[in-house]
Amino acid sequence: MRSDPAAKYFTGKATERDRAVFEAGIALGMIAHQFTGIPVRRREDLELLRRVIENAVKAQPFKEDARVEIKMDLQGEGGNPYDYTTLKTRHIDATVVVRYGGTRVTARLRYIPELDFNLAYIEDIEEVKG
Amino acid sequence: MRSDPAAKYFTGKATERDRAVFEAGIALGMIAHQFTGIPVRRREDLELLRRVIENAVKAQPFKEDARVEIKMDLQGEGGNPYDYTTLKTRHIDATVVVRYGGTRVTARLRYIPELDFNLAYIEDIEEVKG
Amino acid sequence: MRSDPAAKYFTGKATERDRAVFEAGIALGMIAHQFTGIPVRRREDLELLRRVIENAVKAQPFKEDARVEIKMDLQGEGGNPYDYTTLKTRHIDATVVVRYGGTRVTARLRYIPELDFNLAYIEDIEEVKG
Amino acid sequence: MRSDPAAKYFTGKATERDRAVFEAGIALGMIAHQFTGIPVRRREDLELLRRVIENAVKAQPFKEDARVEIKMDLQGEGGNPYDYTTLKTRHIDATVVVRYGGTRVTARLRYIPELDFNLAYIEDIEEVKG
Repeated sequence: MRSDPAAKYFTGKATERDRAVFEAGIALGMIAHQFTGIPVRRREDLELLRRVIENAVKAQPFKEDARVEIKMDLQGEGGNPYDYTTLKTRHIDATVVVRYGGTRVTARLRYIPELDFNLAYIEDIEEVKG
Repeated sequence: MRSDPAAKYFTGKATERDRAVFEAGIALGMIAHQFTGIPVRRREDLELLRRVIENAVKAQPFKEDARVEIKMDLQGEGGNPYDYTTLKTRHIDATVVVRYGGTRVTARLRYIPELDFNLAYIEDIEEVKG
Repeated sequence: MRSDPAAKYFTGKATERDRAVFEAGIALGMIAHQFTGIPVRRREDLELLRRVIENAVKAQPFKEDARVEIKMDLQGEGGNPYDYTTLKTRHIDATVVVRYGGTRVTARLRYIPELDFNLAYIEDIEEVKG
Repeated sequence: MRSDPAAKYFTGKATERDRAVFEAGIALGMIAHQFTGIPVRRREDLELLRRVIENAVKAQPFKEDARVEIKMDLQGEGGNPYDYTTLKTRHIDATVVVRYGGTRVTARLRYIPELDFNLAYIEDIEEVKG
């Protein structure tokens, strides 16, 4: 990774795998804490919001891909002025793919009903070639 | 405003004008504190973000219009993995139009160089007819 | 208000009352969108968070007072690593007092069960003397 | 880690080291995106804010320690109503220590002048015993 000006700040013990896993964690921490609270009323608001979250992930270093779904009941698009919702972490199902050097990490943030928790977890770690 | 189920929670001293001014303040407080920190790399990210902010304002009660511009230098769309920016309040120029009953309020949030401050202020207050 | 360098940006139609009401709206919009999502595990976390929110309100212009309560069930302070909660707007009961010139406005943000909504509303508007 | 009900959601390829590194990334992503924008006026606001950020990190799973410093010029505690500042990521210097099974990871978020970037990086990875 000769194109990584920040590499020297990391401990020499950190491998490419560590770097990829770490970046995936940062991305999901960002998603869980940046977007919560945005007011939403219409179906089309969700589509734009989904793309904004994907782009925000991809703007940060070493991202190969980001796929976001927003699963949310809207309260009805007209009528009562107070019938809108705000985005919560549990509405977000986000998959982030990080590539650092020879390692690709796929990580995900989604609400797990069994745990009643918005879990960030690692779905896959692959060693890849150039 | 017989369609306002929240009206009874407001003091009887609050006029339609007070309500419209108050909603305009809430909207600008939301803008200044909800979107700061979103990572941005590409010009097209800004366009989506602009629309997401406008939609978020319009999702909330009694909004007639919302117009947002984002003024931000991007650092170059390729190259260095760390060449991205995060949205700051001073990048946002937002105009919100609220209508409550017979009053229309236009309010704005923008960076004022002279004050070195992101100022939320009232641009206009009009009495309108049905 | 000769000490207000921002006054000239407001429309000449804006009265002291409008200014006070507007600032109250901004403060409640800030509260609802700035603090949502903060992880909380222990009872003492709530006390600190309460004071941080009060101080944040008072840091902004023209505030006479801010009183915040956080009403939240904690999940148990030990045990399961995932047993923590994140702050939601509905946990916050905030009262803000703004004084601008001769007007004092008391406004509140709290969850209203009847509306199933986190309502920001004006509790009182008083004309005061010097 | 028989006390980790979420373990089964992670790929079997994920080691204890991967888990510890991932959690460290999540924590720093949270810090960078949760607290930005909070208004601050007085020196004592910073001390409370520092403790709220540390507690927020410790509320989340598998944290052994969190140490936060906030480095920020305050604009003067009285006088001009607009003389306050909002917290930015570059004001934060945060160190997070995660322990998962036999691995301890120390990670840090701080502004690096040379990069003009708020860098999250891994300071140390240790294999530890029970």
